[in-house]
Parts: sequence; structure tokens; C-alpha cells
Amino acid sequence: MALTLSVKPIEMESGYNLVLLHERDAEELGVYVGDRVRLSSPSSSLVAAVNLTGEMVGRGEVGTLLEVSRRMGLKAGDRVTVSPLPPPVSVEAIRKKMEGKRLTGEEIGEIVRDIVQNNLTPTEISAFVVAEYTRGMSMEEIVSLTLQMVETGERLRLERGPVVDVHSIGGVPGNKYALVTVPIAVAGGLTVPKTSSRAITSAAGTADVMEVLANVSFSLGEIKEIVERVGGVIVWGGSVSLAPADDLLIRTERVLRIDPPCQMLASVMAKKLAEGVEHLLIDLPTGPGAKVREAEEARSLAQDFMELGRRLRVRVEVALTYGGQPLGRAVGPALEAREALEALAGGGPNSLREKALSLAGVMLEMGGRAPLGRGREAAWELLRSGKAEEKMREMIEAQGGDPKVKPEDLPVGDKRATVEAPSDGYVTHLYNERITAIACAAGAPRSRGAGLRLFVKRGHKVNRGEKLFEIYAEHESKLEEALKVVSRSFPMRIEGMMLERLSDRPREW
Amino acid sequence: MALTLSVKPIEMESGYNLVLLHERDAEELGVYVGDRVRLSSPSSSLVAAVNLTGEMVGRGEVGTLLEVSRRMGLKAGDRVTVSPLPPPVSVEAIRKKMEGKRLTGEEIGEIVRDIVQNNLTPTEISAFVVAEYTRGMSMEEIVSLTLQMVETGERLRLERGPVVDVHSIGGVPGNKYALVTVPIAVAGGLTVPKTSSRAITSAAGTADVMEVLANVSFSLGEIKEIVERVGGVIVWGGSVSLAPADDLLIRTERVLRIDPPCQMLASVMAKKLAEGVEHLLIDLPTGPGAKVREAEEARSLAQDFMELGRRLRVRVEVALTYGGQPLGRAVGPALEAREALEALAGGGPNSLREKALSLAGVMLEMGGRAPLGRGREAAWELLRSGKAEEKMREMIEAQGGDPKVKPEDLPVGDKRATVEAPSDGYVTHLYNERITAIACAAGAPRSRGAGLRLFVKRGHKVNRGEKLFEIYAEHESKLEEALKVVSRSFPMRIEGMMLERLSDRPREW
Repeated sequence: MALTLSVKPIEMESGYNLVLLHERDAEELGVYVGDRVRLSSPSSSLVAAVNLTGEMVGRGEVGTLLEVSRRMGLKAGDRVTVSPLPPPVSVEAIRKKMEGKRLTGEEIGEIVRDIVQNNLTPTEISAFVVAEYTRGMSMEEIVSLTLQMVETGERLRLERGPVVDVHSIGGVPGNKYALVTVPIAVAGGLTVPKTSSRAITSAAGTADVMEVLANVSFSLGEIKEIVERVGGVIVWGGSVSLAPADDLLIRTERVLRIDPPCQMLASVMAKKLAEGVEHLLIDLPTGPGAKVREAEEARSLAQDFMELGRRLRVRVEVALTYGGQPLGRAVGPALEAREALEALAGGGPNSLREKALSLAGVMLEMGGRAPLGRGREAAWELLRSGKAEEKMREMIEAQGGDPKVKPEDLPVGDKRATVEAPSDGYVTHLYNERITAIACAAGAPRSRGAGLRLFVKRGHKVNRGEKLFEIYAEHESKLEEALKVVSRSFPMRIEGMMLERLSDRPREW
Repeated sequence: MALTLSVKPIEMESGYNLVLLHERDAEELGVYVGDRVRLSSPSSSLVAAVNLTGEMVGRGEVGTLLEVSRRMGLKAGDRVTVSPLPPPVSVEAIRKKMEGKRLTGEEIGEIVRDIVQNNLTPTEISAFVVAEYTRGMSMEEIVSLTLQMVETGERLRLERGPVVDVHSIGGVPGNKYALVTVPIAVAGGLTVPKTSSRAITSAAGTADVMEVLANVSFSLGEIKEIVERVGGVIVWGGSVSLAPADDLLIRTERVLRIDPPCQMLASVMAKKLAEGVEHLLIDLPTGPGAKVREAEEARSLAQDFMELGRRLRVRVEVALTYGGQPLGRAVGPALEAREALEALAGGGPNSLREKALSLAGVMLEMGGRAPLGRGREAAWELLRSGKAEEKMREMIEAQGGDPKVKPEDLPVGDKRATVEAPSDGYVTHLYNERITAIACAAGAPRSRGAGLRLFVKRGHKVNRGEKLFEIYAEHESKLEEALKVVSRSFPMRIEGMMLERLSDRPREW
């Protein structure tokens, strides 16, 4: 059964291969919303999902959305034959996962390939992500998922090594450590092709912070050239097609605000495998308000990362770091870039320097550039001597930035407001999510100069009226919005020494 | 923060409230794919989900899809303000269900209202359905879901009673029992406003079979008029807006090919509550190849239906019926309508008469029109006396059909093929899914005259070459397709008395 229909191009992107059929033609073909058809023209052929309409297209017409029109080179009035197809194997596999069954490597391959080739509808991709989240995946399945995500993308093939990388699962405001850790590691002789992400729900991703100092969008060839010449880069992973299935899945995860652990493991490892990484350090910030709240949960996730690494022949080590409050004092792209430059020059806050050195030390040990137990010392020497800063400036230059840039050159928002302590006491808690919400309300990450700077952190004693933090914005209205967030949910808890008063007096007299 | 943008109408339906923003404008607003914005014009306002584009609309423009343009009455060049909104409460509630938590009645209300008002994206509706499927729902949640689905739709308010209905959860080919049961019940003095569905994955829904005899699409007012005059109808539920959330959820369930039990319970009860049903008989066909395979599973589902009924003040009884092979001998709209007319005239196959009488008997007892234990007898008297057939013809006339129609008047496909027994033996099994697949390949349900007729059923002894079944189609190509399905997966198992031969001889010599 097939119909020959006249093409009516619809000037709209849908994100997947979609065609519109008139209800009556669909009846004749025996297809329904979400079913698949094969479209064939004399020169090409493609599988598309069906949507029905009573008015957008008439009988005898097929509406082709941009993805389909482009790939098949169709224009109005072209004749194509449309024939029904059984549901894709991938859709059956997604159903199997919804039922809680294990998938074979082949089934996972079908799903990943269909995602990359725009063959799955948003309804189906969503079902896969939710099934992953609620049913989980075995280690075998995660291995297959990782390998298939690598398989369906491009790869970076470097001519130098050892290739060592670091990846933080995030969740901590102000987490600019990579801008200090990576140059230390590269200065120590490691090859670090660091691809990073832009902020999605945070105030600044590593790529956003680096972009204040240099370009971050490069082709795979350019990245290869820079890494082989300079030893490292810090670029935006979204500009290259390493494990592209991951980017599509992340879009759905973001809409649903879930992050299935099995998908996270596979995503991280797929990107790193595609980069050709031999040794990988995973940073798991742990603490209240971070992605991982308890050490036990972090240790279990660490075991999964190491096990996955063993199966994929990537040596993985994991660092649990303190993630219960922001790292350093600056939150927001330009403010964080300033702080990173200060740390590279030997200054900056202790927590940033401490984390950057610890992680760089592990990387140097993993890559064989420092004896076991001596990595931190080696990292400190590379920082203290100025070699790390020098390497960072070399990287900035290679990525098209100004190698002579000083922290104070970086423009930050000139609309500012300082928030003071409402009472005497100790800062017993900083709420990560609230800090992020303030910085985002102020305009971060899109507004590069927006964000906030903390004057105090956890454990500090403050007096009433003492400055707690300063908000930076580039527009007055954004500053006001940030202040509204502060008054709705104050980002710090300040308590006296007596935390609670208990009594057995009756509450009412 | 808000932008005033120029409207660019996009001539495309998306199924929900969707607008397109240029990437840079979205950045300025701080919104991303799937986020919500409020659109305001001087005369109206609406919440829509955002999609991004670099080319479909320019900076300063907002692309409005048909749902949005229509509801706000927008045309090209109109100015609207666009401001970001936090995620809808319903999306947070869906996330809570994904995490396996229980939802409050209020949260379920938000979800159902947002579904009906086109406020949820396909990604979000899919997440809800999969979360229902994988996490399940408590009885309290199902009660809320049912009530909210009723609340968001229209209601049938009948001036006569007792209102008694029957609903089969389906899964059995040839399940035309309602065309016999309902007229018996109405002839016995019950009020039966039977709304039914069209086939989705089967070869004929009750509405498809009834449509061979009369119209099935009526407004709520027309249904009320007919029921109050004649006592009953058999109509298509999709033509009225009883529990419309259900129709939207079913669309997603169909695409994903899952049927979450909690959603099924709520859907059935919501439709029946909206019809004003006081007594409801649920038919659970049970057996291999049916929706429910084991009696134990059926009993558990029955308990859920009765419990839900108690909480909603609808008296529910449940009948477990044999669902391991087709009901009667005909499968496909016209063939089934013929068989139903024959049964009403006192003929037709035993299994159909037996099921129709049993269910009608329970309905008569539930509605107080027969003493307990005497319902089947009363039903038989109504059938034998011709009163049921007379009532059916009255219903057919009220629904615009020919009250004098005879079985042989109904046109069936003239392209036919008979399939014969490949060997001597007993018919030990009929495969429901394969029978359905053959009838659908032949063109059912769209092709009204397509389907098949069985000459033998389970337990029959057949000789090689004896006729097993006949396929009916309206097009030669469809008949060929049906025969292909037969040869790929033969729908019957025919075995000798010796079913297996076991031996301890080595398999290879």
C-alpha cells in the first residue's frame, strides 16, 4: 500500500523528521499519529513520523517540515510516494526499557542511531529518558550506551600524550577550578583537550568563564592543532560533534529537570572517549545543595565511574570535593574569570587554590608526571613558579584572546548592590541554589559581567550591618530582580551560638 | 524583564501553545527551549512554551503557531509583550511523580487542567504517562485523577434511570457483545448511555461496528434526547467532550504502546462518571493473548475497579470473561455487525450469545430489573421474545440508521480467500494478536467490509484441507497483504493427540 502525494513544504523546523498527512489519506494508508512512513522521491528516500491534520494540507498532499524538505531536496509540487512502515526497532526497545527489562547492545545502538538521525519524536525521546531515570540501567547497558554515543559522533585523534582530562559533575556555584587546574596540568607535561559545557541551570559553565578570556568555539581540526602545539585547550563541547546523541538527550533532560545517573555516566564517558582521553579524573562535589548530597551516594557513583572506566579501558579516578557552598568568592562569568586569573598569579581565595591544586596533583600522578603522593607538591611548584600562569596565557593566545589580560581589565557589571547582615551571628549555611538564583536573576550567564561576590563564607562571624555579598548587574532592572530574589529567599543562614531553645513550658498560657 | 515583539504567524498546528523566539531574544529574556513565557496583547494573554530558532523568525519577532494565533486573535505585525514565567506547577508535579512520590489532589488537578488547556509539551505529557506506567499511583491519586478528568469536561445529565453501563477493557478480537447486551438491558428497563471507542490497535471498536448500522457521532444534547426517548444509545465517545484529558493522554499511550493501569482505571471511571452512570459493569476478558493474561491479575484489577467505584459512589461489579480466543466467529466492522444482528434474532454463535446474556443479566440485577441470580434468565427472555431486537432497531432508527436492516444487507468485502488446515489435528490455540493482524492487513477497521470469519475455534477437530477461516477485503492488494501475514504467522495451532515426544537418545548420532 502506498500513495503518491504532492509535496507542500512547511516552513518550520520540528527537530525531527516529520510529515503531515490529511486525515483521510492517513486512513487510506492505515497510519495514525506517530506512525512511521517511508517517503521516496526518484533521487532519495527517508523515514518520517506522521502527524495528522484536517486543514494544513489537503487530500493528495504531504506537508514536509524543514528537516525533511532539506534532506530530500523537496520543493512544492514534487511527487513523492508515501508508504507505511512498522514501528522502528528503537521504539520497541524504549518500550522494553519502560517495562523495566534490560536492553541488548543492538537495541541501544538502534535507539542512539535513531536519536542522532532525527528519527525519534519528542514523545519517544522523553519516554526513553524517563525510562532510564525510573528503571535505571545495568553496567553492561551503560557500556553499550557509551560506545554507541561515541560511534555516532566524531573523534579527536591526538598525536601527543599522555591525554589526561578532568570533569566535574557540577552543582556548585563559582566552580571555576578548571581554569586553574588545566593550565597547571598542561604546564606539568600533560595533554588536556578539555571540552566543557555552557551553563544550563547554573550561573556560569566552564565554557562561559573561559569565553570571557578567549574564543571557545572551534572545529575539531582547530582543537587538534592547538592541543598538539600548546598542550591543552578549554573549549565549548557544543561546537564539535563529539557524541552528538548526548546533546539531544540533555535537551530533554533539561526540559524535564531530571538527570538519570546512568545517562550521566554514559554522557561523560562518551565525550571523554571521543576526545581520546587515557586518564580521567572525575570531580564529585558533595554536600548539602550540591548534586550529590551524601558521601555514601558519592562513593557509590565513584565506583560506577571507575567500573565503567575499566570496561572502556580508560583509567578513572574520582575526587570527592566539598560542594556544600560556592567555590571561592566569585559567581558569574567575568567575576569568575577574574578570580581564576588571580589564583594563577598566586592570589585568590584559599578554597579555589586548594581545589585546583588537589585535582591537578591527581592528574599529574595519573599521567606519570609526578610520583604517587607527590602530585599536589608538583602542582604547587608549577603554580608558584608562574609556569601555570604562563601556560594559561599561551592557551588564551592560542584561542584568540589577549595573553596579557589582567583581572581588572575584565569588565564587570556597574549596577551594584551590597547586602548586609541582618543580625549578629555566625554564617552557618550558604544555600547553593539561592546563590545561583541571585546571580541568574542579575543576568548571568548571558550577561557576562553579572553575578555576585561573597565577602564571607561558612563559619565566619559577622556583625549586624556587615557586608555579606555584592551583586553585579549590567542593567538596573536585573539588579532589582536579583534583590527581589534575595528578599524572597535569603542565601545565608546567620545564627547565634544558641541555635535552639527548648522548654517544657506549655506553648499557650 | 519583558520584550515587545512583532508577531509572525506560523501556519502550523503543534497540538499545544507554542511560540518561536530568535536565539538572541531568548538569551535576553533568559529563556530556553521548553521554558514558558506569557504573551500579552492589549486584548488577551496566554502562556506558551518556547522553542528557539536561528532562522524561522528574526530578532524582534515572535513566531506564533496556530493554537496561539487563534486563541489570541493575532495577525502578522501585531505587537505583543513576551515575559518569562517560572515552570508550571504541573511540570514540577510530573517531576515528583517521576521520582516516585505521591501527588496531591491539587497537583493532579494542575496536570489535568494543563493537559486540557494545551499547556504541556509532548515531552512533558510523555514524561507523565511513562511516570504513571513505571511508578504507578495510589488509590487516592487515581480518585483525584478521575475527578479532575471529569471536572475538566462536559457532563451528561439524564432525567431518567437507573443509569447502568457496561465497559470492556478489550483485547479480544470480534468483541461485538455490546451490540447485543445493550439492547437487552435497555429492553429490560435500564437507561444505557453507552459511549464507546473506535479501534486503535484492534480490527473493530464498538463504535466502528455500530457505525455500520447507524450514525455514532452526536452532540451531548442529541445523546441526551435519544437516551431519554429510547432508553439507550451506542455512540462514539470521541464526538463529545466527556473527560477530554483522557483523549489526549490516550494519544500518547498509543504512540508509546503502553497502557498504565492507573490511567486506565481513571479513564474508564471518568468517562462513566461524566455520563452520570450509577451502576457499572466492567468486563475483563482474561486469557492468553488478551490484555489480562492470568485470572489472578484480573482479580486484582477487579478489586481496584470496585474500590475506585466505592470511593466515587458508583456501584461497580466486574465480570471475568474468557478472552483467550476471538468472541464469536466474525472479526471486522461489517462482519461483526452482521453477527450481532443474527444474535439479536436468536441465532449467531454460542460464545457471543452466552457472553451477551451473562453481562446483560448482571446489568439487569444491578439496576434492580431482575432479582439477584435471575438476571441471565430475564436477559434470555428479553432476547428470545424479540424485545431486545426490537429495541436495537429502535436505537438504530433513533441514530439515523435503517431500522429494517437485515444481516445480509450489510456489504462485506468481495475479495476473499479461504485458508485450509495444513494437517489433521485439533485446534489447540487461536492467537488473538495474529487474528487481529490479519484483519487489519485486510483493511479493517477503516475498510468496513474487511475482516475474517472463522469456521473453527479452539478444541475443534480438523482434517487436512478443511476450511479454517475466510478473509474478506475490499481491495485485491489488501487481500494479498493479509495472506502474507497468514503465511508469516499462522493464527492457529493444530496438533495431534501426541503433543510432544521426549526421549533420552542423544540428539546427534
